[in-house]
Amino acid sequence: MPREAELSTLRTLIEDNSGANRAVLILDQTRLPGETVTVRLTTLEQAAHAIRVMQVRGAPLIGATAAYGVALALSEGVALDATLQTLAATRPTAVNLHWALARMERVLRPLAPEVLADAAWNEARAIAAEDEAANAAIGRHGLPLLQAIAAQNGAINVMTHCNAGWLATVAHGTAISPIYAAHAAGLPVHVWVSETRPRNQGYLTAWELKQAGIDHTLIADNAAGLLMMQGKVDCVIVGADRIAANGDTANKVGTYLKALAAQAHGVPFYVAAPVSTIDFACPDGSAIPIEERSAEELGVSGHAIANPAFDVTPAGLIAGVISEHGVVAPAKLAGVKP
Amino acid sequence: MPREAELSTLRTLIEDNSGANRAVLILDQTRLPGETVTVRLTTLEQAAHAIRVMQVRGAPLIGATAAYGVALALSEGVALDATLQTLAATRPTAVNLHWALARMERVLRPLAPEVLADAAWNEARAIAAEDEAANAAIGRHGLPLLQAIAAQNGAINVMTHCNAGWLATVAHGTAISPIYAAHAAGLPVHVWVSETRPRNQGYLTAWELKQAGIDHTLIADNAAGLLMMQGKVDCVIVGADRIAANGDTANKVGTYLKALAAQAHGVPFYVAAPVSTIDFACPDGSAIPIEERSAEELGVSGHAIANPAFDVTPAGLIAGVISEHGVVAPAKLAGVKP
Repeated sequence: MPREAELSTLRTLIEDNSGANRAVLILDQTRLPGETVTVRLTTLEQAAHAIRVMQVRGAPLIGATAAYGVALALSEGVALDATLQTLAATRPTAVNLHWALARMERVLRPLAPEVLADAAWNEARAIAAEDEAANAAIGRHGLPLLQAIAAQNGAINVMTHCNAGWLATVAHGTAISPIYAAHAAGLPVHVWVSETRPRNQGYLTAWELKQAGIDHTLIADNAAGLLMMQGKVDCVIVGADRIAANGDTANKVGTYLKALAAQAHGVPFYVAAPVSTIDFACPDGSAIPIEERSAEELGVSGHAIANPAFDVTPAGLIAGVISEHGVVAPAKLAGVKP
Repeated sequence: MPREAELSTLRTLIEDNSGANRAVLILDQTRLPGETVTVRLTTLEQAAHAIRVMQVRGAPLIGATAAYGVALALSEGVALDATLQTLAATRPTAVNLHWALARMERVLRPLAPEVLADAAWNEARAIAAEDEAANAAIGRHGLPLLQAIAAQNGAINVMTHCNAGWLATVAHGTAISPIYAAHAAGLPVHVWVSETRPRNQGYLTAWELKQAGIDHTLIADNAAGLLMMQGKVDCVIVGADRIAANGDTANKVGTYLKALAAQAHGVPFYVAAPVSTIDFACPDGSAIPIEERSAEELGVSGHAIANPAFDVTPAGLIAGVISEHGVVAPAKLAGVKP
């Protein structure tokens, strides 16, 4: 199987050392679901661009790509400080970006120049492998929640928002990982997939689920409240871009509206994320920077446009954080401090 | 001024008796805001089609168009019963449709065949004129609410959903009528306009506001919760497709999510509608039929799609109904029974 083929079925990011220069292959998610296009990253600038324009997206994948961006930069001979600065400036909200860069810096800063590049590739590879393992564990820990719903209702209707499937991570996904686990366990799971305007990442989720043969229904984001009122949603599972120490969670804009509707109808609302998404330095949601993206993303001109890319769901609306260490109440996050 | 020109600046619907057959001119709202196209309705089938495919939309305008559809049908020689059946079947949620048809039937049923057509035109004209007057009154009654906000905050940030401007009515609009009144009174009003997926009627609202020179910002529907959390919204005003006797209100899907967010942040949430939108025969929101529209409206294929066009906001989330008789608490609607 050519390396590119692995990308579309298994992973969002792989190393490719077959050429003269070390490279990282990614799926260009701005072309999905219409086209499956692989991009070969060989420079720092290419890695930064991929994060900035959302060729890669999803907090865990942003973190892994940034780690590989450091490796590419050091192979190019770019200085470590300049590398970290360039990558840290790509996107403001996902904390995994800063987490990965801080980890790379911690490992690399003490090293001699001649071993720097190899050490960077090794650490990036470790971050990617740990992300894959963490997400698989999130699936295992989330599965009992869905099994309990199936046992009670006979079926499972999960609502999600944006894309927190394998496309948002190195592999497996976060919010979708328990759904993959439930499907693999033979449970009758159906997923309500919201479009996620303005970037329509819901179409990525629908594409993932279709590939996996998992029953799903696309909806406009606006339909979420009605479906909960009608009793058609058993639980909500979303990913996260940054979880504050108190459990307040920044995720793709629109998440908060689903959390409010879930609360109004007694539907449990879960956040699925690896511990690397928790920002223990951030006391609560008000300290999380909200990225304002280009007006062009709405696809209309001639008017003033506001385009915040994230919103913050207060901890009080969250039934639990499904992490690689188990399902944790938002108030108990300090206990999983790595 | 040619009659067509009146449509784009003043009214959504006008009679045109300049030709051999009596006709009704409408703006084709499926072509707005890109193109201003006038459609000449001369038959029952054309009127029914215009309602069905949303060339005309908005509960009050649907009602007026249906009334004129009866007049067109009787001028064609179609039987009254068949006419009422055809028009009643066009769309299920807006009660103004049934209200207008019931009113036409009540007036026309006792009449001799030779006077039927003329009487139908007269009654349709009366319904349109009353809608225009009612909406102007809604503007007058809503204005003090906005004046109070301006007095307190110096500025007024109103959020709306869908289009409940003059395009949704014969003239003036419902939710936007107080905004037009505030602008005319020189108040500093700014409007948050949500896209309103999947049909993007928010673009119609933005087009209206731009024409009127009113400050506004387009947002993805998903951004509503964040903006309220950030304190950037002083009140929400939306229209209605059907208000149950207890105040539960069906309006364009997504309205309920805005109402939940408004409640969470202490933002008053108003419904603006003429009394003809209240269905006193409908005890509460659970009795309101929710139209399921074509999957094609989402503009994506290859997946199961659910596309409910409306949702129901419980009366408890509504601060008041701005009607032509004043601002009424949802629990007091029986007092405005016509």
